[in-house]
Amino acid sequence: MPHINLPDLPGIRGPMAYRPETAKPLNELAEILLRDDNNTLSRGERELIGTYVSSLNDCFFCQNVHGSLAGHYLDFDIDAIDAVKKDYRSTPISDKMKTLLSIAASVQKGGKNVTETQIENARKEGATDREIHDTVLIAAAFCMYNRYVDGLATWAPQDRQFYVNRASERAEEGYIDFDLYK
Amino acid sequence: MPHINLPDLPGIRGPMAYRPETAKPLNELAEILLRDDNNTLSRGERELIGTYVSSLNDCFFCQNVHGSLAGHYLDFDIDAIDAVKKDYRSTPISDKMKTLLSIAASVQKGGKNVTETQIENARKEGATDREIHDTVLIAAAFCMYNRYVDGLATWAPQDRQFYVNRASERAEEGYIDFDLYK
Repeated sequence: MPHINLPDLPGIRGPMAYRPETAKPLNELAEILLRDDNNTLSRGERELIGTYVSSLNDCFFCQNVHGSLAGHYLDFDIDAIDAVKKDYRSTPISDKMKTLLSIAASVQKGGKNVTETQIENARKEGATDREIHDTVLIAAAFCMYNRYVDGLATWAPQDRQFYVNRASERAEEGYIDFDLYK
Repeated sequence: MPHINLPDLPGIRGPMAYRPETAKPLNELAEILLRDDNNTLSRGERELIGTYVSSLNDCFFCQNVHGSLAGHYLDFDIDAIDAVKKDYRSTPISDKMKTLLSIAASVQKGGKNVTETQIENARKEGATDREIHDTVLIAAAFCMYNRYVDGLATWAPQDRQFYVNRASERAEEGYIDFDLYK
């Protein structure tokens, strides 16, 4: 049961419906970071960074919502997404993505954990400043979203297929003009 | 030196000037959470929560910017703010604020660390659902801002008086209509 009296909606949707004033910038940030087309990282790659950080933060709701979206965009099934979460280095994602996930993992521990070597490795694989910037901010933002969801003890559907089934619709609707209650 | 090539501005201002598209919702979130008048927590109390979390995350820039703002609003000098960061339980802040800072500290570690007992203690001291909600989200948001600032290795003025001197102007200008370059 959530720590406070929230509308009966799963995950982040409860507190977002409870406090729409803060939901607005939270959703706008997600839209620009994860979905805006003016980005050389694909939507799938950006969702994968968010999924990986949510997994490190052990946030069930976020890692399933965003893992299903990453899977939808990248054409990865649930096992392929789980493999990335478990040990991305042994998966067939690009070497550039591996260096970015390494940076994201350091951000999850705390910003100062990002090393010059990690940045150099990302650059060697072709990562641009903007891609490094967005990786750091996506990782940082999920450290917020994950804490918001779990810090209020929101509930989440436990059947992981629920999230997979909804992914294509969620990909379509995006983070701005969706119906929180649907 | 920052990990990527940023405009030469201190702390979060560098990446915000570099990527104004994401700066917009980041600043709107800060404005609503920390400064909007429709809140039963004072601006000083909200800035103090952000300061405390920034201190736990060891983010020099954020704990000085927001510590100086908290000091400005609460009429606390730099030593009084430092005392809260060091051991808030032994300071003259309200018992309600102590229970909220305890919740914020748990959020900083990870959302699942917030306990029912902490919530009950806050309620006993008169905290409302909305105040608990905002405490959790402020703490979560600073876990993002702090990681953004340090994950990109931004620089910050080391003289702490610099931040104190600017606090009243920053309090006036807020988080939306300020000049990043000023």
